[in-house]
Amino acid sequence: MTPNSLDLISQYAEQMLEGLEWLSTYGADPEGGVTRLLYTQPWLQAQQALTQKMHELGLEAGFDAVGNVFGKLQGKNLALKTVLTGSHVDTVKNGGKYDGAYGVVASMMALGYLKAVYGTPRRTLEVVSFCEEEGSRFPLAYWGSGHVTGVRSLTGASEIADLEGVTMLEAMQQAGFDTASVSEHPAKREDIGAYIEIHIEQGSVLEYKQKQIGIVTAIVGQIRLTVTVTGISNHAGTTPMTMRKDALAGAAEMVALTERMALEEGEPLVATVGRLEVKRGTSNVVPGEVEFTLDIRHTDEWKMDAFRARLLAEFEVIAKRRDLHIDTTLNLHASPVAMHEGISAEIEAACDAHGFESMRLPSGAGHDAQLFGLICPTAMIFVPSRAGISHSPDEFTEPADLVAGFQALIHVLYQYGYGGKVDEIL
Amino acid sequence: MTPNSLDLISQYAEQMLEGLEWLSTYGADPEGGVTRLLYTQPWLQAQQALTQKMHELGLEAGFDAVGNVFGKLQGKNLALKTVLTGSHVDTVKNGGKYDGAYGVVASMMALGYLKAVYGTPRRTLEVVSFCEEEGSRFPLAYWGSGHVTGVRSLTGASEIADLEGVTMLEAMQQAGFDTASVSEHPAKREDIGAYIEIHIEQGSVLEYKQKQIGIVTAIVGQIRLTVTVTGISNHAGTTPMTMRKDALAGAAEMVALTERMALEEGEPLVATVGRLEVKRGTSNVVPGEVEFTLDIRHTDEWKMDAFRARLLAEFEVIAKRRDLHIDTTLNLHASPVAMHEGISAEIEAACDAHGFESMRLPSGAGHDAQLFGLICPTAMIFVPSRAGISHSPDEFTEPADLVAGFQALIHVLYQYGYGGKVDEIL
Repeated sequence: MTPNSLDLISQYAEQMLEGLEWLSTYGADPEGGVTRLLYTQPWLQAQQALTQKMHELGLEAGFDAVGNVFGKLQGKNLALKTVLTGSHVDTVKNGGKYDGAYGVVASMMALGYLKAVYGTPRRTLEVVSFCEEEGSRFPLAYWGSGHVTGVRSLTGASEIADLEGVTMLEAMQQAGFDTASVSEHPAKREDIGAYIEIHIEQGSVLEYKQKQIGIVTAIVGQIRLTVTVTGISNHAGTTPMTMRKDALAGAAEMVALTERMALEEGEPLVATVGRLEVKRGTSNVVPGEVEFTLDIRHTDEWKMDAFRARLLAEFEVIAKRRDLHIDTTLNLHASPVAMHEGISAEIEAACDAHGFESMRLPSGAGHDAQLFGLICPTAMIFVPSRAGISHSPDEFTEPADLVAGFQALIHVLYQYGYGGKVDEIL
Repeated sequence: MTPNSLDLISQYAEQMLEGLEWLSTYGADPEGGVTRLLYTQPWLQAQQALTQKMHELGLEAGFDAVGNVFGKLQGKNLALKTVLTGSHVDTVKNGGKYDGAYGVVASMMALGYLKAVYGTPRRTLEVVSFCEEEGSRFPLAYWGSGHVTGVRSLTGASEIADLEGVTMLEAMQQAGFDTASVSEHPAKREDIGAYIEIHIEQGSVLEYKQKQIGIVTAIVGQIRLTVTVTGISNHAGTTPMTMRKDALAGAAEMVALTERMALEEGEPLVATVGRLEVKRGTSNVVPGEVEFTLDIRHTDEWKMDAFRARLLAEFEVIAKRRDLHIDTTLNLHASPVAMHEGISAEIEAACDAHGFESMRLPSGAGHDAQLFGLICPTAMIFVPSRAGISHSPDEFTEPADLVAGFQALIHVLYQYGYGGKVDEIL
């Protein structure tokens, strides 16, 4: 099926695009960009305004205990679990208009459209505007989806503070939340059957491959390491090349090798040295100590771990040959989260039906969907990001692509709410 | 000839070793190490104490207008220019006991010994304790020898300030120097016929080659560059390896190439990347900009410049292949300064006469001698530095090596002051 009212879908698509601009006025930075940090006034006003919009679209809307906003389109069959769709409302500092916001607005308008055209669904559909995903104000990401999926709680919220020293508990209270009731009314939801998130790619693969829609295969797993290379600091003038134990020359070889081995391994593996610091580095001193980070991502945990093992073994060979010492610290090991094949196939079918060029691709970035992927069938729809730019006022997606994603989302939500997939066990 | 009084030379050698310990009490750091910064109290007390010692050794001693201390052993033939010997009294912060101090103490004791044994020389011999060489307090190195050779003047001394904001002019006045008289009585000396400096190697070549004495062929020329590599900063998760313009991966290739090409070029060339900074470096971001320093040294200016040209051409090739942009800034281009072959041959003869294992080697570090090398015959004697360590409380030279250098210096000063080389035109 394709939605049958072309006029009406054009209207809702127009409202969706306008809605994105409208939402970007909450926390708009004078120099361009949007800043909506968790529990700040612009954030609160945005969530309140979204609640109001959801009401107007005929949804039962409101906050949960931690600040997520839900808009429910109650289904007839109470035995069927809810299909949840949405994304997050918070932004990084001076972020873009699309990251998170697109998923919130597109999902909300999709439910509004479905209700307007098809009335009450058989299965409950629900939009969510998660309070927090970025970890920009407090050093804790996925606060919103973490609460709904039960992996985050208020424990420690009185210790976690922002840069001004305001604790998360204080910030919640200042925003008007009754923190005492949070433990009584936990945000965790047991009635979610599936989660579908639409989001900008934040990469440039779709643009490069000239596809309008990306269907996420998995959210990559991630390893973060810190590597310290120790040699001997020496005078740059008096130490012949053959008598050096240059920590930077060794580290440079490791950085170059990381890139070469990652290219050889091939997609979807990525490996990045993003930070490298020469300790007490001065132009006329042979470096004695270098510290660098290593970020490895893959959709296949076994391959990710095997790559790390091979790479670190090669680092040891380099260090031994150069008479350097090497230390590694593991900072993060997160498993990949596979997306649901059934829902993904339905997204693909929607693209085929509408004539949207689509492709499967992994998500190299983290999303709220990765928390749901562990507890229920979950899928993600990507639309292209111009030049891959995100977390910047320059973030941009073509309106035609935003509308294509919107239509694909409507198609899938229709299938699980009203159509042939309603009775599929989720 | 060898000095004929073995008893006396042992006495003076003992006093020289004690003198090093004694001088290190001026500015001794409680945690070990020595700090004698220009125009500070420990510095002033050290120079005053040295003046006193020189008097006691029978030398005409005193300060010049900027704080250099000279001790003169007047020769009979006033037509012959002075042979100056010495080094600098200032140290880096928390420096060692030997850097500079050894040259001052050994030269002073050498003149004391020569006077005691041989009386008045035919040619004037003079010891100098330069006020400043390191540039540790003010961003201006070679202040002392620069004044004597006429390449440094008080111009700008009211603008150059230390970390506390004290200008050099104020510091001079606080130390009791009449800055008004400096222009009237400039420190520049027109009567210097030759300069001979004994110094610790500050490298580990002599130790590695098991030689007691190094005879410096030249003080290397030096090029200092800053290289900026610009790519595109991107998300470490969403940017496939093949779509990156990673400034750090490019810089790492350049650092590795620098080392490889320097090894291929061979000694005495050295090339060092001592500082490397990833701008806004974060573990989960592909680096967009990297800045690093490049320090190239060689005793042959043409080869040094040719190496730089070839290396930078290769950097351009790397940048082009990776679609990166590269910018280079030249911060320093100092020509090599050759040492005088006649005096160097005399040092070699002294080593042979005493049975000291010696070798010729370039000085990769800068010294007061490089300023004299431009205006008069100049030579340098090196003694080994344990593990090449300098500018540290761990700086150490075996007493036997300190004494060997002392004896070689005495031998050469005898030749030019009393012996067969007196009438050599210097």
